[in-house]
Amino acid sequence: MNEAWNAFHVYRKLSLKQRADFMRNIAIELENCGDVLIKVAMNETNLPEARLRGERARTIFQLNSYAQACEEGTWLEARIDTANPDKVPPKPDIRKMLIPLGPVVVFGASNFPFAYSTAGGDTACGFAAGCPVIIKCHPAHAETSTIVADAIFKAATKCNMPKGIFAHVYGTSFEVGKALVMHPHTKAVGFTGSYIGGKQLFDWANQRKEPIPVFSEMGSINPVFLLPEKLNASSKDIAAMYAGSITLGVGQFCTNPGLIIGIESEALQSFIHDLGKAIQQIAPGPMLHPGIAKAYKEKRETALMQEEVHLVAESEQTLSAVSNPDSGSTGMPTIATATGQAFLNNPVLHQEVFGPYSIVIRCKDINEMTEVAKHLEGQLTSTLMATDNDILNNDDLIEAVKNICGRFIINGVPTGVEVCLSMHHGGPFPATTDSRFTSVGADGIKRFARPIAFQNWSNSLLPDELKNENPLGIWRTINNLLTQEKVN
Amino acid sequence: MNEAWNAFHVYRKLSLKQRADFMRNIAIELENCGDVLIKVAMNETNLPEARLRGERARTIFQLNSYAQACEEGTWLEARIDTANPDKVPPKPDIRKMLIPLGPVVVFGASNFPFAYSTAGGDTACGFAAGCPVIIKCHPAHAETSTIVADAIFKAATKCNMPKGIFAHVYGTSFEVGKALVMHPHTKAVGFTGSYIGGKQLFDWANQRKEPIPVFSEMGSINPVFLLPEKLNASSKDIAAMYAGSITLGVGQFCTNPGLIIGIESEALQSFIHDLGKAIQQIAPGPMLHPGIAKAYKEKRETALMQEEVHLVAESEQTLSAVSNPDSGSTGMPTIATATGQAFLNNPVLHQEVFGPYSIVIRCKDINEMTEVAKHLEGQLTSTLMATDNDILNNDDLIEAVKNICGRFIINGVPTGVEVCLSMHHGGPFPATTDSRFTSVGADGIKRFARPIAFQNWSNSLLPDELKNENPLGIWRTINNLLTQEKVN
Repeated sequence: MNEAWNAFHVYRKLSLKQRADFMRNIAIELENCGDVLIKVAMNETNLPEARLRGERARTIFQLNSYAQACEEGTWLEARIDTANPDKVPPKPDIRKMLIPLGPVVVFGASNFPFAYSTAGGDTACGFAAGCPVIIKCHPAHAETSTIVADAIFKAATKCNMPKGIFAHVYGTSFEVGKALVMHPHTKAVGFTGSYIGGKQLFDWANQRKEPIPVFSEMGSINPVFLLPEKLNASSKDIAAMYAGSITLGVGQFCTNPGLIIGIESEALQSFIHDLGKAIQQIAPGPMLHPGIAKAYKEKRETALMQEEVHLVAESEQTLSAVSNPDSGSTGMPTIATATGQAFLNNPVLHQEVFGPYSIVIRCKDINEMTEVAKHLEGQLTSTLMATDNDILNNDDLIEAVKNICGRFIINGVPTGVEVCLSMHHGGPFPATTDSRFTSVGADGIKRFARPIAFQNWSNSLLPDELKNENPLGIWRTINNLLTQEKVN
Repeated sequence: MNEAWNAFHVYRKLSLKQRADFMRNIAIELENCGDVLIKVAMNETNLPEARLRGERARTIFQLNSYAQACEEGTWLEARIDTANPDKVPPKPDIRKMLIPLGPVVVFGASNFPFAYSTAGGDTACGFAAGCPVIIKCHPAHAETSTIVADAIFKAATKCNMPKGIFAHVYGTSFEVGKALVMHPHTKAVGFTGSYIGGKQLFDWANQRKEPIPVFSEMGSINPVFLLPEKLNASSKDIAAMYAGSITLGVGQFCTNPGLIIGIESEALQSFIHDLGKAIQQIAPGPMLHPGIAKAYKEKRETALMQEEVHLVAESEQTLSAVSNPDSGSTGMPTIATATGQAFLNNPVLHQEVFGPYSIVIRCKDINEMTEVAKHLEGQLTSTLMATDNDILNNDDLIEAVKNICGRFIINGVPTGVEVCLSMHHGGPFPATTDSRFTSVGADGIKRFARPIAFQNWSNSLLPDELKNENPLGIWRTINNLLTQEKVN
């Protein structure tokens, strides 16, 4: 951590372009890892080749697009108010921008060995913000992580980055994580994983002498509300779409739709029937690692054991072909159902069952559906399958749903998280520990920065971002006007 | 709190213009309170008339300028990425903006009965963000607070605001504050005051089932570093300037310079001598209330009792004329001194002595001064009295100072916090509980908001802020370009 602290003081003074070049070189080195990386990851995670190639491409895209955002500099929120000596008292020259927080500790995710792990979104955001990054690699794919870490080290050497700009830490115990979070030089933490893990990091960080921000993304059951007019018109299409979304990647996405809420009707019966039929046709896949498969099996059983919960259907196919078959780690596609009343009364039904499982809640009317929405905890996403009329006529429901989610989808599926500036991947607690920040998209850079105001500095001593002549050509707010011009 | 929760759902749907009108009407009603308000505040706070008139004008300016920022809408961080059906997989239309968090509880400050109390900065930011506000008034100026609250209620009635948009709560016990912070409908907290109070609110908020953000501004000793070239050239001017800053408002500002650090030299001796002489000429003033005066007396005594601390000078004048004289509440202007070594070894010297007290630390050289900077905790402000050469030649010191402050001043005084967009009134812990947000300037609105992404919504159902035609004419980032144009 001392090396990271020293590196911080060197790295934060490098230009935005130098940070971006470093990130682009990591992307190049990641590509250079070639097929070896894909093979190792396939072995460690059970994920299929196409998915892993796609995920690496996404990781490279993240590095390159956040590098571009870093360089463009709008995220710095540069604000300039020029002096006014005639004011009483005289108004000084004040200029503000975001500066990096310091060394960031990132905990790799099990379900995204590339995109939310060693060179993933949190790491890219940390480097863009001007922070050294310490990765605590996920033990389920430590070898994959090591290859990616080597790519980062190569890029760091090539770009003359200071020693300590990046570190790769192994460890399976809580103690390693705790030591990293509690270290006085750690200034922020990024995490993607379970509620238990993410909340623990948050609590440790707040118990420090100097509390630090923790961005834990802790999953979500991603409720989907089927509104009556829409369901009547398209129950078959919705069933087909959701059978795919529920089982995508063996259900191992934080945006997996684990809860579908409808209103008792013929259309809902058809939907449940069609969804069940479709699920029966989808083969169970191998899960990421035995720990996740075991947890899925147990949570699925607990859910199905509840008196009010009925099994609708499960897969009737045999395990699909995999590179590293292991029948003990299979995720069985499953659809269950229960009434709205049962959901409102039994908190077990609110719990995430991480895997290809979804429960359809049958409400007696729209009021009960709204009650369900009001009783839900914070979520990464919520979805309405709805016509415009459905939306216009059910304002209470819409407002209740808005209160609980970070991304609000109409007529789509929550799986598939586009990497773009408008993405918000976050949401009210317990989906994340800080609903104000996203972990996907270039706005995620802001997690690792804080503002500083420079008052009465000579132009030549100011950072380039704030100099009169605007040498970087970035967007700045000068005397309340947003502009790319220089200061007159 | 239930009324506030209901009001939240009505208020957040009002237009930005309606929020701004409400805020402007509060400003008008505050002006309409006339001389009565000033007289009551003078009696309750011991603050002089001119200061209170100035502070009310500042409060009105805050309300009007945050109203303008609210309406302009740049703070909403609107981002639009349009759909691309040709991408594989197809890219959906996603549009993001900030939405209000929910009811905000604000704890009024003792030292700013107007600007950081009932209708102060936190309240203005909450209303601008779209949140109802519940004020826990400061018991030291409850009558002042009641008059201001009535002004807010009047404005609310005039503007047809929903019942529950604002509430005014009395109470001197910790229990009242705790109940407000722990209520499930409270979604954020603003506080200005002591470390003990602010940290307690932060801890409670993090112990909730659903943790919520707490913006506690907990004070600071605002170090001032006297660099050699500058001190040699202008020790007399600096002494005069700082005698004024230290005693301004009887030292009762969170940006009061409580720590001045120099390097042993003839110039430093002259500075200490001149500062002491000037302090002797400044009359002690009455403090805000007996509790603050008692705390000042005790902390000042504790500091002066330290073996390594020497009294340089204290006021030799009699108590200045006041509206409500009370010899028990006098703040005695005081300058003390100690060596750099003493400062590094004795944590008592790092503690804030809230009042007109400052200690001059005599370092043996620039390295010891840098050590002092590295040992300081987070601060609202830090100041360098320095020539350009002083800055260019002492990079280690500059970087160490940058790590600990939210506002970095060159050749000025930290007192006087300009209300403008470039202001950052915040800083690393323990100056505040969240260094990423400011409590002064329109960026403070963002404290009470979080992003939400709307995916695949019909244009007509989107909030106006995100509609294709940009009916509000606000700045938005469309497909990565910042623009005020409509979506094509």
